[in-house]
Amino acid sequence: METALKRILDGIAPVDRTREADGQAHLDNLTKPVGSLGRLESLALQLYLIQGGQPPEADPMRVYTVAGDHGVNAEGVSPYPQEVTRQMVLNFLADGAGINVLAKTVGAELFVVDAGCCGGAFDDHPALIQAKVAPGTANLAEGPAMTREQCLQALLLGVSLADRAHSDGVRVLGTGDMGISNTTPSTALYSAFLGLDPAGLTGPGAGLAPKVIPAKTAVIRRGLEANGEAIRSGDPVEILAALGGFEIATLAGLILGGAKNHQLVCVDGFISTAAYLSAWKIHPAVKDYCLLSHASAEPGYSAVIKALGVEPYLQLGFRLGEGTGAACAMFLVRSAANIFNQMATFASAGVSESR
Amino acid sequence: METALKRILDGIAPVDRTREADGQAHLDNLTKPVGSLGRLESLALQLYLIQGGQPPEADPMRVYTVAGDHGVNAEGVSPYPQEVTRQMVLNFLADGAGINVLAKTVGAELFVVDAGCCGGAFDDHPALIQAKVAPGTANLAEGPAMTREQCLQALLLGVSLADRAHSDGVRVLGTGDMGISNTTPSTALYSAFLGLDPAGLTGPGAGLAPKVIPAKTAVIRRGLEANGEAIRSGDPVEILAALGGFEIATLAGLILGGAKNHQLVCVDGFISTAAYLSAWKIHPAVKDYCLLSHASAEPGYSAVIKALGVEPYLQLGFRLGEGTGAACAMFLVRSAANIFNQMATFASAGVSESR
Repeated sequence: METALKRILDGIAPVDRTREADGQAHLDNLTKPVGSLGRLESLALQLYLIQGGQPPEADPMRVYTVAGDHGVNAEGVSPYPQEVTRQMVLNFLADGAGINVLAKTVGAELFVVDAGCCGGAFDDHPALIQAKVAPGTANLAEGPAMTREQCLQALLLGVSLADRAHSDGVRVLGTGDMGISNTTPSTALYSAFLGLDPAGLTGPGAGLAPKVIPAKTAVIRRGLEANGEAIRSGDPVEILAALGGFEIATLAGLILGGAKNHQLVCVDGFISTAAYLSAWKIHPAVKDYCLLSHASAEPGYSAVIKALGVEPYLQLGFRLGEGTGAACAMFLVRSAANIFNQMATFASAGVSESR
Repeated sequence: METALKRILDGIAPVDRTREADGQAHLDNLTKPVGSLGRLESLALQLYLIQGGQPPEADPMRVYTVAGDHGVNAEGVSPYPQEVTRQMVLNFLADGAGINVLAKTVGAELFVVDAGCCGGAFDDHPALIQAKVAPGTANLAEGPAMTREQCLQALLLGVSLADRAHSDGVRVLGTGDMGISNTTPSTALYSAFLGLDPAGLTGPGAGLAPKVIPAKTAVIRRGLEANGEAIRSGDPVEILAALGGFEIATLAGLILGGAKNHQLVCVDGFISTAAYLSAWKIHPAVKDYCLLSHASAEPGYSAVIKALGVEPYLQLGFRLGEGTGAACAMFLVRSAANIFNQMATFASAGVSESR
């Protein structure tokens, strides 16, 4: 698996910026004051560069909502019982969750992935990809959440999801997560990768009472200590294995695969951004292929995006995960591509330019 | 016309807030942590209240892009020649502008309205409503931009646009503007209605060079002085007539008509928000029926929304007008309605609630 991952990483390169001036010149020639569509224009340019200087295509779009359970749930870090992960997978398959509605609204296909839910296999379903690495991770507060082999398996699973989408013609990917307690591993990853104190990052997740948050912070601190050796190694795969989760590692792999395949990846919120950060530590060029969809309402998120130096596109106070923010951002991606491709130029429309 | 306006204003009432608890209870019962879809949930609730406690409907949607010219253009407040207003109307009709692309992307119908462009009538076109009040306003730096009668005519035109949409079943309206130099009247309206100093509000509009902005500020100051009597009258129609424009007054009428018809109005950016402020001064209950779509990049906009105490939905750095921000916000409106109507409840999906 090490060799397979290495081969994939060798296939990832930054976008070719020599095409940037051409793309920008095209945007500046459209019938609007220069830059007046703001971030929609930079998004159109990003898509243009990702796709190698062709008229950017936003469709088809696909969201992968990846589910996994967490041993650290035993520490009381979530107000929801662990079986909700599994129940929500069934809810996704029954078309009843937030991501079902929002993916349908934007016109993105949705696949659900069991990367590591507790319990056995699910009944087969056309929208379900059964790829359970193990039934839940180990408790990161006491040692590594995953073995290195498990983490590599999840990363390669994610790459295979990007590849499957690529062979289906998908141009834009969305990342989604489901996993009770998964703000805890995500916060631990932020602390480890960014050197930020967990006290400033730990929040209520799905709705932990404020008085319990210090206990959650203490669990994360224990996890950072118990996995000190992995963290000090500086090896991002080792750190992801120690502190992450099956859905987080799978999403990191999806991001790496998207970059390899020249797909734009809409990174969802707090959990997906931890996957993005892990992928970025594994291969920094993924930055060119990703956008942060929305600013999670989880209080630590603002410190994270400040450290990453990336501005999310939407500020709507979401804290649901599942890919819901990514689905909303996908509308902006389609809008950006259409602006690039469908607007008239000053010359073609006979509109006078500014003096 | 005074009587006609009064009859319309008498038909506007705040939404019935006694239904709020029911709508909120429904949202809280959907399979997601309470409030985890943030502003999409409050948007769904707003639409539910506007529509009288029915399952909210977002479609059909319609954008009206209203065009008019401005006598104050003679003062050199825009880098674009005045004929661009007319050229852009033709560009709208030829499907080549930003709003054409974004309205189509979101699935909203687009109508273009000549409320007061310079020059004569346009050739007929199925998407064009010819309702020119006059070929451009007078120069507000020297006196009232419009007579009271002209302003009333534009307000009633706007109401008729809302009514026409209502009889076509339209549930959600978007406001759009086109008018070279129209950040100048908008800024003057903000100064007059909010008591803010023009120096803190005046910006580059479509791209005025920074060194010319103080001259634009001086033009606005002259306008405030020349129209001091209207401003001191405190009569919002009088103030709108003195400092506004045909497209701005028409959009104010569209907002009033939308409120009367229980339609949600997506207010676009800097110009449309001046129309919203005017409508709100004419009848404060319009607040319940409107949302601010996006935060205009025009620097004065942040002071305006602070004074209004309303937060726009999108922060994308747009400064184009035409209804482009409104079209993007319409996607959020549809998403909010779908969330309200299509998500499963905890009970129906068999998902455990939080402890």
